[in-house]
Amino acid sequence: MSYPTSLPLPSVAFDHGFLAGRAKLVRDTVIPWQWEALNDRIAGAERSGCVHNFQVAAGEKPGKFHGLFWQDSDLAKWIEAASYRLATHPDAALAAELDRLIATIAKAQRPDGYLNTYFQLVEPANRWANLRDCHELYVAGHFIEAGVAHFAATGKRTLLDVVGRLADLIGRTFGPGPEQVPGYCGHEEIELALVKLARATGVERYRDLALYFIEQRGRSPNYFEVEARRRGEDGKLPWHMHHDGLGTLQAARPVRELTEPVGHAVRMMYLLAAMIDLARDRPDAALAEQSRALWAAIVQRHMYVTGGVGTEPYGEKFCEPFDLPPDRAYAETCAAIGVVMCARRLLELELRGEYADVMERALYNNVLAGLALDGRTFFYVNPLEVVPAVAKRRYECHLVRTQRVPWFGCACCPPNVARLFASLGDYAYSQTVDGLAVHLYAGGTARFKGGTVQVATEYPWQDRVEFRIDPAPAAGFTLHLRLPGWCRAPRLTLNGVAQKIENVSGYARLRRVWQSGDRVVLDLPMPVERVRADARVFAAAGQVALQRGPVVYCVEEVDNGPQLSALSLPRAAKLEARAAPDVLGGCVIIEGSALRTPLGDKLYSIETPAPVTVPLRAVPYALWANRGEGEMRVWLRES
Amino acid sequence: MSYPTSLPLPSVAFDHGFLAGRAKLVRDTVIPWQWEALNDRIAGAERSGCVHNFQVAAGEKPGKFHGLFWQDSDLAKWIEAASYRLATHPDAALAAELDRLIATIAKAQRPDGYLNTYFQLVEPANRWANLRDCHELYVAGHFIEAGVAHFAATGKRTLLDVVGRLADLIGRTFGPGPEQVPGYCGHEEIELALVKLARATGVERYRDLALYFIEQRGRSPNYFEVEARRRGEDGKLPWHMHHDGLGTLQAARPVRELTEPVGHAVRMMYLLAAMIDLARDRPDAALAEQSRALWAAIVQRHMYVTGGVGTEPYGEKFCEPFDLPPDRAYAETCAAIGVVMCARRLLELELRGEYADVMERALYNNVLAGLALDGRTFFYVNPLEVVPAVAKRRYECHLVRTQRVPWFGCACCPPNVARLFASLGDYAYSQTVDGLAVHLYAGGTARFKGGTVQVATEYPWQDRVEFRIDPAPAAGFTLHLRLPGWCRAPRLTLNGVAQKIENVSGYARLRRVWQSGDRVVLDLPMPVERVRADARVFAAAGQVALQRGPVVYCVEEVDNGPQLSALSLPRAAKLEARAAPDVLGGCVIIEGSALRTPLGDKLYSIETPAPVTVPLRAVPYALWANRGEGEMRVWLRES
Repeated sequence: MSYPTSLPLPSVAFDHGFLAGRAKLVRDTVIPWQWEALNDRIAGAERSGCVHNFQVAAGEKPGKFHGLFWQDSDLAKWIEAASYRLATHPDAALAAELDRLIATIAKAQRPDGYLNTYFQLVEPANRWANLRDCHELYVAGHFIEAGVAHFAATGKRTLLDVVGRLADLIGRTFGPGPEQVPGYCGHEEIELALVKLARATGVERYRDLALYFIEQRGRSPNYFEVEARRRGEDGKLPWHMHHDGLGTLQAARPVRELTEPVGHAVRMMYLLAAMIDLARDRPDAALAEQSRALWAAIVQRHMYVTGGVGTEPYGEKFCEPFDLPPDRAYAETCAAIGVVMCARRLLELELRGEYADVMERALYNNVLAGLALDGRTFFYVNPLEVVPAVAKRRYECHLVRTQRVPWFGCACCPPNVARLFASLGDYAYSQTVDGLAVHLYAGGTARFKGGTVQVATEYPWQDRVEFRIDPAPAAGFTLHLRLPGWCRAPRLTLNGVAQKIENVSGYARLRRVWQSGDRVVLDLPMPVERVRADARVFAAAGQVALQRGPVVYCVEEVDNGPQLSALSLPRAAKLEARAAPDVLGGCVIIEGSALRTPLGDKLYSIETPAPVTVPLRAVPYALWANRGEGEMRVWLRES
Repeated sequence: MSYPTSLPLPSVAFDHGFLAGRAKLVRDTVIPWQWEALNDRIAGAERSGCVHNFQVAAGEKPGKFHGLFWQDSDLAKWIEAASYRLATHPDAALAAELDRLIATIAKAQRPDGYLNTYFQLVEPANRWANLRDCHELYVAGHFIEAGVAHFAATGKRTLLDVVGRLADLIGRTFGPGPEQVPGYCGHEEIELALVKLARATGVERYRDLALYFIEQRGRSPNYFEVEARRRGEDGKLPWHMHHDGLGTLQAARPVRELTEPVGHAVRMMYLLAAMIDLARDRPDAALAEQSRALWAAIVQRHMYVTGGVGTEPYGEKFCEPFDLPPDRAYAETCAAIGVVMCARRLLELELRGEYADVMERALYNNVLAGLALDGRTFFYVNPLEVVPAVAKRRYECHLVRTQRVPWFGCACCPPNVARLFASLGDYAYSQTVDGLAVHLYAGGTARFKGGTVQVATEYPWQDRVEFRIDPAPAAGFTLHLRLPGWCRAPRLTLNGVAQKIENVSGYARLRRVWQSGDRVVLDLPMPVERVRADARVFAAAGQVALQRGPVVYCVEEVDNGPQLSALSLPRAAKLEARAAPDVLGGCVIIEGSALRTPLGDKLYSIETPAPVTVPLRAVPYALWANRGEGEMRVWLRES
């Protein structure tokens, strides 16, 4: 199935249930809170400097640049998030705040379109001189995404014009021409942003430029080597490029030759997102095929059960296939968001439930773990096993936090969560040529050209999803309802009558001339499941993860005491799901009994200690570390 | 029981069996091979530069210093090993080679006694200016040990005089006097060396200086901070001191306050060795008590089942209690040698089998793993689990080698193994005030003042140890035979008559007026045992290590196929030991059956794959990686 580029997204309002609650938290708390962080007004948080840098660059105040090369991108992602919020929840004060901020940004922009406060304030002579390390095009990409989102939300061209000028500068600067730079960014992002800009403006050359960046990447002579020599460097690469070299940046060989994910996980996912976008828009069957193969490699060999990717803390990278250690999981929040982005794009290439399954897994587990219940603290790294004293002690865990923090010196993740949840509707639904596809089930309303679909559900805690359809006049359309891969026996009724499900690639297809008030009920029974990893995943051998519906569970010290590794789950142990409205903001917990090996008096012994039966309580992984510091683990030994 | 300082060690010759074979390998192959390495004559090995550096410093050839600050110490350890060899196996050619080398060293020594080719050739103005990092006193300590060993072996004072002058210079330079430096070395070694020198020469001030170094360590104002300020440094510590700061060097607080091992494992063990030496020689009951407590902490909370210590690759350090990951085990060969050194010294404080048990565990497993079957390649790091592709890939494993190598840029371990095995008799026996104690069982003869004890055994492969006693005329003495802690039911006969064993702290005590030709037979039944770790060792939860006698086993890919983590050992599975004269130079292997989880077609699944029964073969851990590269693991899942 293929889609025209311009097919609009449904307009979605979430109004009840778990995901709606998270989206509301992002709207009402996270976005305002992050604005405070970006303005350096949160005591105890690491300083952002983002707004400050633009005010200085705009000449509005004196001062010095603060932060990292890519500091501006935190602000760009926040603008994108705030714009999505405006689209669904108009707010004059926020709109005015954005207008003021955009005016400052416009003032900071150089006459030729250049915009990057680090280079403007710190190294004005070194524009585009170190594409490998300095993230200039990455930052530009995030501003372009912000500009497109702000335009779509408000109809105002203020920021779109700014980023259009920036994109035009980039288009003049980079390319195959004799006066142009044959380079590309060390951190992909500009590519997918240019596709968005092309879609928003209809200007095809932005898409051409995105494709140029992808085609040029890793070609010989390698641009990063050329520019390093030009900078007078000795060819030694930064430490985070150990083992993979320029493969860390997906630039060791041409992109078209990639068959296995390589290097920095976020970069890899953003590259893949752009590849899928271009495969669809061009269309480019070879690129589509390669994208699917890369995706399959990621999902089949490189993904945590939480949907996270990136298992190597040094360089935040993909590692060997099946090397998925729980304690050293990097599983950056941004990388899981990249998984969500790619999955959603693949659904535009082809409506296959397996893509939505992974999207849901990453969203409900790794991504949501990035955000505290109160919306004010965040995880960057998302391990599947934490012993706090060890995580704080071991150098290879030095980026693991045992508690969420209000902000990071490198704060890519928090605003990334914000922009994802502020645009959650775009991930939950697709408008298809023949109707509407529902990928994620959450309480609310979707409006599209075929009419309105209202969803009532307490998913993922309860298994029932009810749809009320109110078609536009005389509108026959097809409803594609995702049948989650984790569900062994979905059931469907139409106006109370059980239906045989027509399962097309993981979606129940309902073709019909709808009547206003038609009711579809989808039941997705979600018993507690024991998930096992492939035998090649040595770190999970002999262990199970508990999962119910899309939610992966963990055990925490607060519920089960310390030394969680001493627990094992007998094969026959019964596990029950129980609604716990008073636990972690209201969720379903899993209870049962486990065996606990008693502590010994010798480090090593040939005696067999008799295990004792203890109660076991597991909570959703995404909600861990909301009740103080303690041990946590996802994988439980089976005994 | 306490011993006079001067009690001589028995004279021991090993002549048959496994340990004797390893000792012979060291004598006949390792020591000559390392001499080639130290002379940079091994193609493909990392360059040593050791002999070269001394020749340059002596003015015998032109050239530049090669290597690290502590390069000289590799040569010193080799001289010590070669001297031990001369003591047991006179060899005119080796003696002459040593004489020539010692002449060069003497020529290189400065008139004031200073000796360190790095500082002489590279930074002559910076003697003693960076005790924290530069290992000057450590290197001196190794030369002192070499000098003492050479004197004991040959009666020649050539090297002893050199190191006496060096020790005297150190004695003049360091101390509490107004003109003296109140410092100590960042890497302990000088302390135990000075005790050896005091014992060899009877000069008490060397022991005073050893005690001064220990007492001064970590006191306020901290000398390392003072000297860093003097060097104009900003107070930032080198990366390997992360987390522990000066505790990495056991210098964050006074030594007398240490209750838990801290910092660099080899340094900690060498410090402890010196503490035990001084506790014995002074005697110092408080130091003895503290040494025993530190030892207990190491053995009960910080030791691998192979006897290795040091679990943190960054800084080669002790980590949190019970944090003993098999794949990131540092377990440096030198650190396990430090364990052996401390255990042997504790046996001089008190004859307790538990010390010898640990000595034996470290020796037969971690230490021996450091040496290839052919004696020409070595391990520095000794993990308990290796997946080669992952070990080569992960940054935190970047010091793990999947195959032994001929030499290292930092080659502390190979000559350390050599000097240990060349003096193995000193570890196997003690002369006690009332007779002879046997700590390690190996085929050979021990001569001491009470007479001669001949040992016939194929230990550790067979459980019988036969002793023939030939007393000196009219010599009644006590024979203390170690009863290994791993042995549930030892049996003893005297001249064919079963004896009730008088077990005194883990040693069978046989008091008797011996007749020439008396025969004692000790049977130490050694079934295959499943060893379990304390439940706090999260990395070994639900797993067992196979052990038979003192030998810890592992499974290797060459015997069991890849994906060793897919294997599990049913609780009821029978395991049998089998003599395998054709395997790994002749050893006992363990055979049985295991379950193997088949590979799946999904990374995660809610289906339960049916395991298949497969044969299992385990080989001694110390002999792993002698049959090509492949996976290895010690801990096996129980199912």
